[in-house]
Amino acid sequence: VTQFEDSVLPLTVRPADLDRLGHVNNAVALEYCEAGRWDWLERNGLDGGGEVAAVVARAEVDYLAEIRTGPVQVRTVLVSPSGADLGELTYQARFQQEVRSPGTSRPAVQAVVTVAFISEQTRGLVSLQDFLDDRTHPTRSPTESLT
Amino acid sequence: VTQFEDSVLPLTVRPADLDRLGHVNNAVALEYCEAGRWDWLERNGLDGGGEVAAVVARAEVDYLAEIRTGPVQVRTVLVSPSGADLGELTYQARFQQEVRSPGTSRPAVQAVVTVAFISEQTRGLVSLQDFLDDRTHPTRSPTESLT
Amino acid sequence: VTQFEDSVLPLTVRPADLDRLGHVNNAVALEYCEAGRWDWLERNGLDGGGEVAAVVARAEVDYLAEIRTGPVQVRTVLVSPSGADLGELTYQARFQQEVRSPGTSRPAVQAVVTVAFISEQTRGLVSLQDFLDDRTHPTRSPTESLT
Amino acid sequence: VTQFEDSVLPLTVRPADLDRLGHVNNAVALEYCEAGRWDWLERNGLDGGGEVAAVVARAEVDYLAEIRTGPVQVRTVLVSPSGADLGELTYQARFQQEVRSPGTSRPAVQAVVTVAFISEQTRGLVSLQDFLDDRTHPTRSPTESLT
Repeated sequence: VTQFEDSVLPLTVRPADLDRLGHVNNAVALEYCEAGRWDWLERNGLDGGGEVAAVVARAEVDYLAEIRTGPVQVRTVLVSPSGADLGELTYQARFQQEVRSPGTSRPAVQAVVTVAFISEQTRGLVSLQDFLDDRTHPTRSPTESLT
Repeated sequence: VTQFEDSVLPLTVRPADLDRLGHVNNAVALEYCEAGRWDWLERNGLDGGGEVAAVVARAEVDYLAEIRTGPVQVRTVLVSPSGADLGELTYQARFQQEVRSPGTSRPAVQAVVTVAFISEQTRGLVSLQDFLDDRTHPTRSPTESLT
Repeated sequence: VTQFEDSVLPLTVRPADLDRLGHVNNAVALEYCEAGRWDWLERNGLDGGGEVAAVVARAEVDYLAEIRTGPVQVRTVLVSPSGADLGELTYQARFQQEVRSPGTSRPAVQAVVTVAFISEQTRGLVSLQDFLDDRTHPTRSPTESLT
Repeated sequence: VTQFEDSVLPLTVRPADLDRLGHVNNAVALEYCEAGRWDWLERNGLDGGGEVAAVVARAEVDYLAEIRTGPVQVRTVLVSPSGADLGELTYQARFQQEVRSPGTSRPAVQAVVTVAFISEQTRGLVSLQDFLDDRTHPTRSPTESLT
């Protein structure tokens, strides 16, 4: 694997996402980002249930403008590791994400989300390379991957 | 107003919608239906903030099949009052709704949702006709509607 | 098993549960009911991950009064099968549930929720007796239960 | 007002909060934090609907351990402005928050949440002092506050 594609996911704001002010709730914006990361995985052929799960280790979220009812777009870009570092052993990946209403010049929400990888069997941390291997070799069964 | 259009709203399942079995949670299906009713209102020119709110009075929901990650469609049809009764005074409206994965022959969720109408100022029940008046005369200000 | 205990679960309304009117969203009330049923299972020694899952087949929910921020109580009672029928083969269980603010004379939400039971391995329907066996014999491993 | 009290809010994890791994979803942890900040406001006599709303401007969240079903505690401490700075004009407040399972030695989630204040009428930013004035003088009506 040498290059990943960015993802732009269209979503629809649901009434239950809104708070008393008629804005999308701050926690719900993180749900949008999570949907964006799943779309990124799918776009890059890394979806599908394997034995290694990606879990959020840290999120930094800036709320720049209110989001109201209507369509939104979630943009997801892998920022680390970058191309040159992809071959090195690493235990985290970092995404830059934006939520915006279509046609607006600047995002309503900007987030930097760091994910780590855990084995669903041992619950221990594993590397990004383990995650990529697990997702790109779906025919290899969990049992085999432990031998 | 004599005829209303049905609505078919496409939505995307978000990871946070899924439960431990990887299925859309039963309460979340009602969030999908609520989004469908808002789309129905918008399609029929009845969205927009007025002085009368539509609130759910009763919901009957049948869960026929599991919904997994991916796109879904929410179909919303007004079943009561029907054409002939639209001129009569009524305090409720009833919608039939379906949630399904695109391309499947039968819905995963079927719901019958009864809504009532309340004045945001008095908190009292008002009629469907009051609701329709409120939504189709946006230029009439709340203050005027009280005189 | 001959008798089940009712459950009364105290919950706290979270800000994200509220909609634009400052009321608990109609879908969120079903989340409260789900928490109530889990508490009922725990109170009756039926929690714990087994090989049989309880899934909602149908929900009938009446919204009688608005719920605002603060504490709420969820009352959960098994209404079917009742004592005399518990020995007979059945594929569903039905709960009557209420959500109310403490100290109020009548519930804000009343629900009748029917659950069915599925084997997590075969995804097929199994009986209430299979569910009870699975939950009350935690030492029996999934593999053994298939032989 | 010169000194604020910390808040420790007990919450119950709901089944719908859990993801496919049986852990509390990362976005839901922010809902817990929001509930904690509302409890902090109430404990310090700053709840109640006024004309000034507190909105989240930035959240930094570290996910240190998984949260499973059961009770949790949300601890909320105001870290900025601190005692000495409380008299100075400021447009933000910063909270340090922790979510933990009772009896555990370290938190599962740590968050630093910055809130800003907006006038619900003008939608413009206002100061912390405006917010405190609004919440501690409930008898002053919105109209009066504009004259």
